[in-house]
Amino acid sequence: MKTKAAISWKAGTLLTIETVDLQGPQEGEVLVELKATGICHTDYYTHSGVDPEGIFPSILGHEGAGIVVDVGKNVRSLKKGDHVIPLYTPECRECKFCLSQKTNLCQAIRSTQGKGLMPDATSRFSIDGRPIYHYMGTSTFSNYTVVPEIALAKIREDAPFDKVCYIGCGVTTGLGAVIFTAKVEAGANVVVFGLGGIGLNVIQGAKMVGAGKIIGVDINPNRQELARKFGMTHFINPHEVENVVDRIIELTDGGADYSFECIGNVKVMRQALECTHKGWGQSIIIGVAAAGEEISTRPFQLVTGRVWKGSAFGGARGRTDVPKIVDWYMEGRINIDDMITHRLSLEQINEGFDLMKSGESIRSVVIY
Amino acid sequence: MKTKAAISWKAGTLLTIETVDLQGPQEGEVLVELKATGICHTDYYTHSGVDPEGIFPSILGHEGAGIVVDVGKNVRSLKKGDHVIPLYTPECRECKFCLSQKTNLCQAIRSTQGKGLMPDATSRFSIDGRPIYHYMGTSTFSNYTVVPEIALAKIREDAPFDKVCYIGCGVTTGLGAVIFTAKVEAGANVVVFGLGGIGLNVIQGAKMVGAGKIIGVDINPNRQELARKFGMTHFINPHEVENVVDRIIELTDGGADYSFECIGNVKVMRQALECTHKGWGQSIIIGVAAAGEEISTRPFQLVTGRVWKGSAFGGARGRTDVPKIVDWYMEGRINIDDMITHRLSLEQINEGFDLMKSGESIRSVVIY
Repeated sequence: MKTKAAISWKAGTLLTIETVDLQGPQEGEVLVELKATGICHTDYYTHSGVDPEGIFPSILGHEGAGIVVDVGKNVRSLKKGDHVIPLYTPECRECKFCLSQKTNLCQAIRSTQGKGLMPDATSRFSIDGRPIYHYMGTSTFSNYTVVPEIALAKIREDAPFDKVCYIGCGVTTGLGAVIFTAKVEAGANVVVFGLGGIGLNVIQGAKMVGAGKIIGVDINPNRQELARKFGMTHFINPHEVENVVDRIIELTDGGADYSFECIGNVKVMRQALECTHKGWGQSIIIGVAAAGEEISTRPFQLVTGRVWKGSAFGGARGRTDVPKIVDWYMEGRINIDDMITHRLSLEQINEGFDLMKSGESIRSVVIY
Repeated sequence: MKTKAAISWKAGTLLTIETVDLQGPQEGEVLVELKATGICHTDYYTHSGVDPEGIFPSILGHEGAGIVVDVGKNVRSLKKGDHVIPLYTPECRECKFCLSQKTNLCQAIRSTQGKGLMPDATSRFSIDGRPIYHYMGTSTFSNYTVVPEIALAKIREDAPFDKVCYIGCGVTTGLGAVIFTAKVEAGANVVVFGLGGIGLNVIQGAKMVGAGKIIGVDINPNRQELARKFGMTHFINPHEVENVVDRIIELTDGGADYSFECIGNVKVMRQALECTHKGWGQSIIIGVAAAGEEISTRPFQLVTGRVWKGSAFGGARGRTDVPKIVDWYMEGRINIDDMITHRLSLEQINEGFDLMKSGESIRSVVIY
């Protein structure tokens, strides 16, 4: 079949909208008609050429929502008409990682996914017989895409695609880091470094579980207002205090119980660790640092009880937890609407990248 | 009263045995007659002058066992004749730290203890009216010492002082890191960096909880035999393999579930983190690095699920857990006897320091 898709031909160039040949779903695969997709920083990171693992030409996009159109052989958990969110972190429920019950990092299809291919090591996308690579196993910048069954979360049918697509990455990454990775408890003091989309979702996660103080840290004071709407109780502008770490320790009577780094800056990651409470403070790294950069601290910080960890996709198991988060949205327990700042057509996708680069959008969503 | 004690007059000089004036126990304090004390690396570290927080002249020693001789006003949990182990990490059961139930780092008397003083900010020891400082709140290189009630674990009376004194630091630090900090589960693969006294106690802790592979890493092959006796199943000499981390990942099919750094080398701390399993590996720092040294790694190590933590006094609550560990020893569940390699009189204490420096002893114990 044919589908319309945005192609990244080469790092840093404009994406172009093309008609692409899409091979139907093979065994264990599902054809999905996407109804909406967010444009995430990670798409931009890869498209810019900074990502050392970027593969071109490819169809980017990993924050989609849509409807199952067709299923390949031996697909049992999904059928035509099901509403789904593609998962860049699958959940096979069979690999050592899934069975460990200690991580969400299913490795079932990792090696082919990392090469821009489906599990059988080929691509479903092509133009004039020339293969176009998949991206993060999802390629949601295409009206139709093929995804392995284990990389699709089935969601309720009354959920609006143009909102819940954001659960495919940003919402789950922030909310999940609080709920699944850190397991923040009621009354705990939380600090969030970076008040972009991920930071806002950390904040609403902290609010949802009944955190005490929710302190936001950002050098952009304009981000304060929206963050307060999502639950931030205190704001610190690092440019306005002598020492961020000291200020947080003061505000929290000894340090934060949990901190979250949502920027990808290794210096901030150190501050995030060191502002946590002696004896039990946990710092969770969410932001992605540039290739080759390193975090450091004195080991004394850990020996005196602080814990340094990270979170990928919010520690969420895609097929198990993503449908729950969709429910939370539908029940009004979390707010997504106020984060969707721009709605675009696929033809406007380059504008979406510009909006993100400039910091004007929290999230731009492409509606098919 | 008078007591015989080993005095550290100045960093790096020989200790001398003196008759010291000891003021009786004040409110909330207890007079203990020590029956035995281990000589630990931390005593050596302070005595050598490398410890930036060392205070002189002082009476070192923090790994003792003895009998209560007298109690001050308002001491309720101990009476004359009780057998006790002094605790350099007290357990007041009233401070924010104790009540958090998340840490053993009671802070009730931290500031005075750090200054070599009792909680009322004075010393009980003096010679010719000149104060001699306490050390770690315990000063066990003295036949008699005064210790706050909250810094004494009451133990069973049939436990031999010359063995269980080691529970006052080394045994608990290693065993506790496994049991209380990491909470290693049966079947888990464990790696131990450094097969000195702490490493051996980590090994026997791992064995006690039913760990799977217990891999020891040390550049000294002579340490292999004793480590195997304590439960080590595999040995790696870093000088004999191309890459320690790769070798561990190979041996454990993906990485260790838990690793313990028992040396105090920041480069080894990094290896200890990076040899753990993607998704859930935990690395626990026990060793004390030199002042100013820093650990570092790529944040990707944490974002992909590894956890970096530390352990002080094995995460053990002194008054609650130390008596349990004494029971475990008396029940034959842990081996201390084979680690007590040398027995000395107080007059031979400088020999004890030399034995440790040369690596000839696992633990030298002074018998009063």
